[in-house]
Amino acid sequence: MTLYETALTHKSASKLDTQGNQVNNERLEYLGDAILGSIIAEFLYNRFPNQDEGFLTQMRSKLVNRSFLTDLTYQIGLNAYIRSNTNNTAENSHIYGDAFEAIIGALYLDRGYRVTKAFIVKKILPSYVDLNQVQHTNTNFKSQLIEWSQKNKQEINFETTEHLSGDSKTPSFITVITSDGLPIGKGEGNSKKESQQNASHQAIKYLKKTDAQSFD
Amino acid sequence: MTLYETALTHKSASKLDTQGNQVNNERLEYLGDAILGSIIAEFLYNRFPNQDEGFLTQMRSKLVNRSFLTDLTYQIGLNAYIRSNTNNTAENSHIYGDAFEAIIGALYLDRGYRVTKAFIVKKILPSYVDLNQVQHTNTNFKSQLIEWSQKNKQEINFETTEHLSGDSKTPSFITVITSDGLPIGKGEGNSKKESQQNASHQAIKYLKKTDAQSFD
Repeated sequence: MTLYETALTHKSASKLDTQGNQVNNERLEYLGDAILGSIIAEFLYNRFPNQDEGFLTQMRSKLVNRSFLTDLTYQIGLNAYIRSNTNNTAENSHIYGDAFEAIIGALYLDRGYRVTKAFIVKKILPSYVDLNQVQHTNTNFKSQLIEWSQKNKQEINFETTEHLSGDSKTPSFITVITSDGLPIGKGEGNSKKESQQNASHQAIKYLKKTDAQSFD
Repeated sequence: MTLYETALTHKSASKLDTQGNQVNNERLEYLGDAILGSIIAEFLYNRFPNQDEGFLTQMRSKLVNRSFLTDLTYQIGLNAYIRSNTNNTAENSHIYGDAFEAIIGALYLDRGYRVTKAFIVKKILPSYVDLNQVQHTNTNFKSQLIEWSQKNKQEINFETTEHLSGDSKTPSFITVITSDGLPIGKGEGNSKKESQQNASHQAIKYLKKTDAQSFD
């Protein structure tokens, strides 16, 4: 397989190489994730010369998050070329963003940092990303909830339980959010973040219903 | 200030530029953190061609963690050049690693990716980092505890509560670890990770005392 074919091969469609090793895009995704992170970091550093590192970090996390990369993968049509043999929806949600990162890893190994940076900064970002919209969109339910708590001087607690059963390698997470001792949201997920987002989303819905005036 | 002087200026020693903006190393640290992350990612990708992304991710996190970078900053003598006006020990613990990252950011802006990569891969890593030792050292108490739970087929739960009071921007974290419904460790911290490490450390001490045979 070429580097690019490997980048488009999800682990569910792994091939064996001549030495019997499984070949799929996981290693390239690891590499591409890091390369993409540093290209985006530098792009934002230059684009926003007067913003502090808190702003830059938040913008970067919006631009490299899984759902943003999944949308991007569909927009550029890369999704059609991905090889996978899975119907599991929870896993599916990662396949597209992971393949995009793996392609970045492959491009970096093939053509180097400068070409990869030009591809992201000159081709992808201007054509597919509205920075102004990204800047002003808050899809982070947890941070919306924290803003609400600060605005209304309400205490809030996130209680996340990470459950590891002895025979499983994958932990599961449950988050309960309380305010003034009362539960206002609960969510599950395969990561702490996912369970907190789900719980925050539920809490926001609850607050909007019961306390619409303080939540705009 | 030159880029390198800025990189060595902690925010407690910020200067004002001609437009009245505070100048310190926070933005360069943000940039350098990302550049260092991708250089280390690629180095490990090439160095360990047969390891999966789980191994590579774990190695990378050991090589870029704060205490590792702090040690490195002392070893190369960079600590002597850092300008700061703080005696706060909690903050101090970050100053050195942050300055190292900021220097990487400055070097990248000054000389580009190739030179920065050569500096890390050809100068820093061979002289100051024993990869074999890094690979076999597990300073991560949480992962030690998880290994124990898998080896002994014991269920284990991490229950982390993130407390946000309405008037404070900084959350605090408390983790309680239970096994078979019994609490075996508790820890506090300024981050989820710190509280989980502290709780895991306590749990390990407890298990070693009560159940020495199953914990080697």
